[in-house]
Amino acid sequence: MFAFDGGMGTLLQARGLKPGQSPEAFGLANPDIVADIHREYINAGARVVTTNTFGGTDFKLDAGLEVVSFNREMTAVARQAAGDRAFVAGDIGPTGKFCRPLGDVDFRDLVEAFKRQIRGLSEGGADLLIIETQFDLAECRAAVIAAREVCDLPVAVSMTFEDGVSLTGTRPLTFIDTMQNLGVELIGTNCSAGPEGMLEVVRAMLPRLSTPFFAQPNAGLPELEDGRTVFRLDPETFAEQIKPFVALGAKAIGGCCGTTPEHIRCASKVFEDVAWSLPEPPERDCLVLTSRAQSVAVSPHRRSKVIGERINPTGKKQLTAELQAGQFSEAFRFAKEQLACGAHILDVNVGAPMVREETLLPDLVSALVSRVQAPLCLDSTNADAIRAALDVYPGSPLVNSISGEPGRMQALGPLCKHYGAPFIMLPLLGRKLPVTASDRLAVIESLLREADDLGVPRRLIMVDALVLTVSSKPESAKACLEVIRHCRDEWNLATVCGLSNISFGLPARELLNASFLVMGMTQGLSAFIANPGSNRLMESLSSSEVLLARDPQARDFVAGYAEWKPTGGPLPGRDSHLAGAAAPVETP
Amino acid sequence: MFAFDGGMGTLLQARGLKPGQSPEAFGLANPDIVADIHREYINAGARVVTTNTFGGTDFKLDAGLEVVSFNREMTAVARQAAGDRAFVAGDIGPTGKFCRPLGDVDFRDLVEAFKRQIRGLSEGGADLLIIETQFDLAECRAAVIAAREVCDLPVAVSMTFEDGVSLTGTRPLTFIDTMQNLGVELIGTNCSAGPEGMLEVVRAMLPRLSTPFFAQPNAGLPELEDGRTVFRLDPETFAEQIKPFVALGAKAIGGCCGTTPEHIRCASKVFEDVAWSLPEPPERDCLVLTSRAQSVAVSPHRRSKVIGERINPTGKKQLTAELQAGQFSEAFRFAKEQLACGAHILDVNVGAPMVREETLLPDLVSALVSRVQAPLCLDSTNADAIRAALDVYPGSPLVNSISGEPGRMQALGPLCKHYGAPFIMLPLLGRKLPVTASDRLAVIESLLREADDLGVPRRLIMVDALVLTVSSKPESAKACLEVIRHCRDEWNLATVCGLSNISFGLPARELLNASFLVMGMTQGLSAFIANPGSNRLMESLSSSEVLLARDPQARDFVAGYAEWKPTGGPLPGRDSHLAGAAAPVETP
Ligand SMILES: [Zn+2]
Ligand SMILES: [Zn+2]
Ligand SMILES: [Zn+2]
Repeated sequence: MFAFDGGMGTLLQARGLKPGQSPEAFGLANPDIVADIHREYINAGARVVTTNTFGGTDFKLDAGLEVVSFNREMTAVARQAAGDRAFVAGDIGPTGKFCRPLGDVDFRDLVEAFKRQIRGLSEGGADLLIIETQFDLAECRAAVIAAREVCDLPVAVSMTFEDGVSLTGTRPLTFIDTMQNLGVELIGTNCSAGPEGMLEVVRAMLPRLSTPFFAQPNAGLPELEDGRTVFRLDPETFAEQIKPFVALGAKAIGGCCGTTPEHIRCASKVFEDVAWSLPEPPERDCLVLTSRAQSVAVSPHRRSKVIGERINPTGKKQLTAELQAGQFSEAFRFAKEQLACGAHILDVNVGAPMVREETLLPDLVSALVSRVQAPLCLDSTNADAIRAALDVYPGSPLVNSISGEPGRMQALGPLCKHYGAPFIMLPLLGRKLPVTASDRLAVIESLLREADDLGVPRRLIMVDALVLTVSSKPESAKACLEVIRHCRDEWNLATVCGLSNISFGLPARELLNASFLVMGMTQGLSAFIANPGSNRLMESLSSSEVLLARDPQARDFVAGYAEWKPTGGPLPGRDSHLAGAAAPVETP
Repeated sequence: MFAFDGGMGTLLQARGLKPGQSPEAFGLANPDIVADIHREYINAGARVVTTNTFGGTDFKLDAGLEVVSFNREMTAVARQAAGDRAFVAGDIGPTGKFCRPLGDVDFRDLVEAFKRQIRGLSEGGADLLIIETQFDLAECRAAVIAAREVCDLPVAVSMTFEDGVSLTGTRPLTFIDTMQNLGVELIGTNCSAGPEGMLEVVRAMLPRLSTPFFAQPNAGLPELEDGRTVFRLDPETFAEQIKPFVALGAKAIGGCCGTTPEHIRCASKVFEDVAWSLPEPPERDCLVLTSRAQSVAVSPHRRSKVIGERINPTGKKQLTAELQAGQFSEAFRFAKEQLACGAHILDVNVGAPMVREETLLPDLVSALVSRVQAPLCLDSTNADAIRAALDVYPGSPLVNSISGEPGRMQALGPLCKHYGAPFIMLPLLGRKLPVTASDRLAVIESLLREADDLGVPRRLIMVDALVLTVSSKPESAKACLEVIRHCRDEWNLATVCGLSNISFGLPARELLNASFLVMGMTQGLSAFIANPGSNRLMESLSSSEVLLARDPQARDFVAGYAEWKPTGGPLPGRDSHLAGAAAPVETP
């Protein structure tokens, strides 16, 4: 364990920063004061000092200050003050702007602004970056992506929650799910309401937190006194309240508003002799999709997730016409209907003739994001369309799909890693379909190796079990089931399939689809692409969750089906096996 | 390989047996002639000679001849003629009578008649018994059961087929299924239409024949000449036509009507130097139920079988009243309805208050046997009722069930073995239900050991996966599925369950039952006790068979469901997950 430093603002005010004056301009004008504060924190026990660059982007920096040089100079001050006694964290605060469609800034403009700041921090000698006091998931994402595009410094990200939720509606679990998908090195929370209030936030993260975490609370709740905000938590009490974080396995502790070197001195005594190890999360490296408001974990051991398939122009005349005209009302209707039927994720495909997917897919995704809370699945064979949609999506969407087609993993694997986007891996190598389970598993293994070589983490990979129609390949359902089982038992990988293909060319397809769903779930099928408007399918799903002990007290099943009535009686036309009728010697 | 002998009748006629005179009386009066014939066959190469006792039961033997002494004396003649040059097979032909309800003889009377004959054969020094030229499955069964009740001689059983079916409607596969359940040592076919016609009969047996087999054809097709039946196939051609039997893996060859020592001499040269080994049947030791007309194989790798549950008075007022009055019309109606819905096996339970199961169960079984071709499941906790029903059933019924209750396996295990009746093994040891899969598997292992120790063959054992209701034991469905999978993968044992218990106490039970059926089938559930009148269940069954590649070209599914129509549209009252509604951070 180690200590970050504490607040900068309070100390600057004590040394001449006027109310209304920007700390950035003051710091640049008074590097000795800033250096002094860094040294005080180091003397108090901080192993990391944070640069005076909280507002150091184009969007916030005083006119006349150049972003790169400002950040470089402030970092150099910290670097020199720290010497080899402490690390320097290049500080990145929020821009105060929101990405579209929440605000009017393009995601890419935000990324570029952060990139300029980070270039300065990096050139000034920062040892790591700390993206902190963040309150919007899209902005966190932009800052992390910017960092990766500029340098290879470790990245810490810290979000601020009020009453367990960030300003734009993200909860701690969804925050860490998204950040872990992005592969950040340190995850934390800061500011808000002092150590005690922050404890619940950390607890909410723990179920899936497999990344070292830190906390930087304020010195208690902010209070207003003579028009000024003050923080009254004294250093000893602050240190006392830090103890539970140590017990939960925090990797680092620091302070935010109102904290002083004395707070850090007292706090760091708390964990002076604590041997640190990352606690084992109950669910390690589970695949998770996120929107701003939701996490949807997809795992062979969790409820099977419905990916609504209907926003896809194939075979839909009106949707096709609308998409060609750049209109979305039909797509919105499909979104609404599918969610009402119980879809957990919505597939979004705009692949119609005479459509520019590179602009239409991000436009529709952007429009859906403000109407729908469920995570989206970006479905396109066009890599540029995927990239453009990844830019506008404020979380971890699902990318559908990466096949074994030459060059596809090289192009899209690193892209998904960069954007922290899980993807569907389709075990297709060329024109020849792998039919047997062992053929499919061999293709999957080779794609997994390819992903490993590209540094794409397994947590982003969901395997498509490749449903082939049983009417032409009778053993193909069994092959699928074996692939699903193998992925669960041998690799702990989530699996998905497009359900309806199984029954192509046969009557009563819904019966086959529904039975195949139950079979798949028995073997660990984690998600399936289907039309949630099929009652039969949703009945099968809901009853299977009871049987797989994933619907406690059958609460959801009872809520959905308490009024359900069977349709009784034998079907007409069945053969009679009574004596007298010609019966076979052997019942098949 | 070895040779049996050939015909006795033709040779006796050549030495003085008059038309109309009984070969038994003639033989008893002329032991030297009989001994001569035995010696001629031995000299011709026969390693087994057959006693002159074909009609040696009470039902056929001339008045004045005492059964035990007649059989003893004729066997002694053969024994002495054979010396240590050949084995003596005590011959048992059909009685000419039919058991109830086909005829008017009680099964037990038939057994007792055979027992008297066999006592004589055994006392006379027979090395084995050969029950031959049989044409009714119930009578074969009676003879084998009689043999086991009298002695421990090896038993060979041979049935005669015309156009591939025995006189009372049994086909070769069902014959050998039943005989293998009874554990006979040698299985064959004899008489009928010469070697060429007999080949198809042997081929029909091969898929499941795991017992050494033999064939004793006539010397060609019988022809009528001057009012006498003659057989024209010469010894050399006979021997030529024997070759395919050798190629198929026959253990022994002999001759029936019209064959002579010369036929045997020629035939035995064919396999003089053939090294014999039992061919591996495609399906080894699969559990099979039989009626006179049908085999129903129950295996984790075959279609899952429906055991119709409705003939059970529990909760059925009218059925209860009828059974108490000894009337069966309601039971017949349930039988008919369930078969029309697709049941493969019918459970028969008469356990109502004020009913003597020991007489009522065999009465109902006997009445059903002449109305229904499907195998029956004898369902009673009363061991005497089971025993009585086993007597009247003309094949291999299913016994439901043998639990781990103290003494139950000791009482019923050997009974089932004796009658060749497969049984359901219920993993219940005492009052405490084994809930987890490993608890259940431990009980199953201990019951299997108990069965092994009693010499009960595994081929008779079907494991009940013990369905407990998920509303009180949420993990119990998963435990069942694990038991089913383990039985399939580790023990190759068939599994069964009473389906509907899974959903007790919940609404929309059919949905849960149907999904559980599909889950079970995915893991190898081989049969299930249920009401086949449930459309949902039968739809799940039929569609699952397509998916498990057990309904070639989906023929049965298409036949049953080509006209099926889905019921569309979302259910009312589902929550909307659109933005604005309160959505959870984490979708379960
Ligand atoms: Zn703060
Ligand atoms: Zn014959
Ligand atoms: Zn004969």
